[in-house]
Amino acid sequence: GTAPAIVRPQEVLRWRLASSFPKSLDNLYAPAERFAKSISDATDGRFQVSVYAGGELVPPFSIVDAVQNGTVDCGHTAAYYYFGKDETFAFDCTIPFGMNSRQHTAWMYDGNGLELLRAFYANYDIVNFPMGNTGAQMGGWYRNPIKSADDLKGLRMRIGGFGGRVLERLGVLPQNIPGGEVYSALEKGTIDATEFVGPYDDLRLGLYRVAPYYYFPAWWEGGAQLTLYVGTKAWNALSPEYKAILQQAASDAHVYMQARYDARNPAALKQLIAEGAKLSRMPRDVMDAAFKASREVYAELNDKNPEWRKIYGDYARFLAEQYQWEPIAEGSYNQYMGAMRL
Amino acid sequence: GTAPAIVRPQEVLRWRLASSFPKSLDNLYAPAERFAKSISDATDGRFQVSVYAGGELVPPFSIVDAVQNGTVDCGHTAAYYYFGKDETFAFDCTIPFGMNSRQHTAWMYDGNGLELLRAFYANYDIVNFPMGNTGAQMGGWYRNPIKSADDLKGLRMRIGGFGGRVLERLGVLPQNIPGGEVYSALEKGTIDATEFVGPYDDLRLGLYRVAPYYYFPAWWEGGAQLTLYVGTKAWNALSPEYKAILQQAASDAHVYMQARYDARNPAALKQLIAEGAKLSRMPRDVMDAAFKASREVYAELNDKNPEWRKIYGDYARFLAEQYQWEPIAEGSYNQYMGAMRL
Repeated sequence: GTAPAIVRPQEVLRWRLASSFPKSLDNLYAPAERFAKSISDATDGRFQVSVYAGGELVPPFSIVDAVQNGTVDCGHTAAYYYFGKDETFAFDCTIPFGMNSRQHTAWMYDGNGLELLRAFYANYDIVNFPMGNTGAQMGGWYRNPIKSADDLKGLRMRIGGFGGRVLERLGVLPQNIPGGEVYSALEKGTIDATEFVGPYDDLRLGLYRVAPYYYFPAWWEGGAQLTLYVGTKAWNALSPEYKAILQQAASDAHVYMQARYDARNPAALKQLIAEGAKLSRMPRDVMDAAFKASREVYAELNDKNPEWRKIYGDYARFLAEQYQWEPIAEGSYNQYMGAMRL
Repeated sequence: GTAPAIVRPQEVLRWRLASSFPKSLDNLYAPAERFAKSISDATDGRFQVSVYAGGELVPPFSIVDAVQNGTVDCGHTAAYYYFGKDETFAFDCTIPFGMNSRQHTAWMYDGNGLELLRAFYANYDIVNFPMGNTGAQMGGWYRNPIKSADDLKGLRMRIGGFGGRVLERLGVLPQNIPGGEVYSALEKGTIDATEFVGPYDDLRLGLYRVAPYYYFPAWWEGGAQLTLYVGTKAWNALSPEYKAILQQAASDAHVYMQARYDARNPAALKQLIAEGAKLSRMPRDVMDAAFKASREVYAELNDKNPEWRKIYGDYARFLAEQYQWEPIAEGSYNQYMGAMRL
């Protein structure tokens, strides 16, 4: 028989995506570009997403507002930038002593994470999709060595995101300084330390020249997930076909971003060490003091923030289960391999 | 103005996908189903992939042949099943003391892995896509404790894939037994030990009842990647649009499979321990003897298999770099978290 032919409109759907990140931080910026290309490829160019770097259309840290107001159709950002609106945002990126990259992805794709966060974001007219992760980050650059928790007292440290809430309890004075100004602030002595991401991004900023003591790990970022925010109205206007394409393109960018970090960090770390970075493990008493402080912060938030409390229980349960399993197969394998001459 | 309307054919493209896995091993089977649904959703049902479980259309371990011959359009399998054809297949799944899950994904998405394997698979008229990973596996079930490398001598052990090549050198007698017969073979004493995957799958087989000693990690599977095989002819016949949709659907299934394992293994491990599984770390001398044997096997293959040699150098270099970095941020974070009461 002859199948009926359906006439399909050839109108091109055009969206604007605002990224929080500059093109120069290519691991952070690239997932949005890959996402846009994927959607164009999958629709033969009928659905076009134009990507704007941080600050081009809207300020880098105002993606929630821009998407909520419909200034842009979608955005790519780190949810913990918005913890000032509500600490609950942090669950979508990371919290101190939180999930690592794979655990976070597992919580989002096969646990209750996506559902819980979708309910939270509905308050902001946003539909969220996980879109990238940095993996465990480095604990930052310090002008002087950190020998114990005492050395943190009075330390002026640049830190983005929710981690500052815990660092404050250790006597750190968290500073909010744009990435582009961190180097000169350290050079001038306006700040004593800064955290950023990991070797690949840190190398670009050249921080080892002014603050050579490089500590690991960032207990405040065992993995930092980035998120695609889509305005609810823009989302609802999509056909089921385009919705599926968008979700799959976000998944593809999600795996791609972690892969880029993992593939590119090792060479950057080598170069940093060759350039004079002094690599050290964060002292145990700093870790323990920070862990204790994080529990206090979470207990207080459970008391005073009902949105936080709605998610914390599930997050904490999932996390605790994960770390009963992680040391067994994955951890023991990685420890053995890390100790071998390969 | 009025845009010209183009008439698009509504013919449905129908593909058949042969999985190596039974529906009962749902973490292994599910990625193919998710992939098929993604493609249908993204094309409004115009591209349909029917998924057949292991054995339904073709034998579970003959996916290479079935795709190469055009018996099916595509398949989902573990590449190391085919090491008898050529050991090089193992690089697409795992080799003993090889990359962990994230490292393998990094090599495929941002290293040279995909390009090198695409060139290899061209010999089999196959286009490959990474589609899932189990994460680091468990080292199997043993009727008696393994106290040292001596206890492996003469051990009749069921093992799938390339790892048997190294276990042989330790005196193990590798056995090839279908998953469904492993339990009775252990019960009857036909074999002394078996490896399978990890807690979630192992629980299903009930092996703890007949071989309670459960060792970690599987040094032969620090991560096992599954692969989507698409026949070159079927691939070339796709529009650029469908090619993009297929690739993104594979990425989505890739991240989904690892997430399922990560989310579901912890509860399964708890249950196994409650049921009597005796959990132990693989003795250090077994690890070291196996590591040494693996180097010997790889040196021999580099000498005698030119296809293997084409990939080994890049794989080994990438792996070595990864494990210079892994213990720093990721490893130190995970070790701290694994030791805490969460």
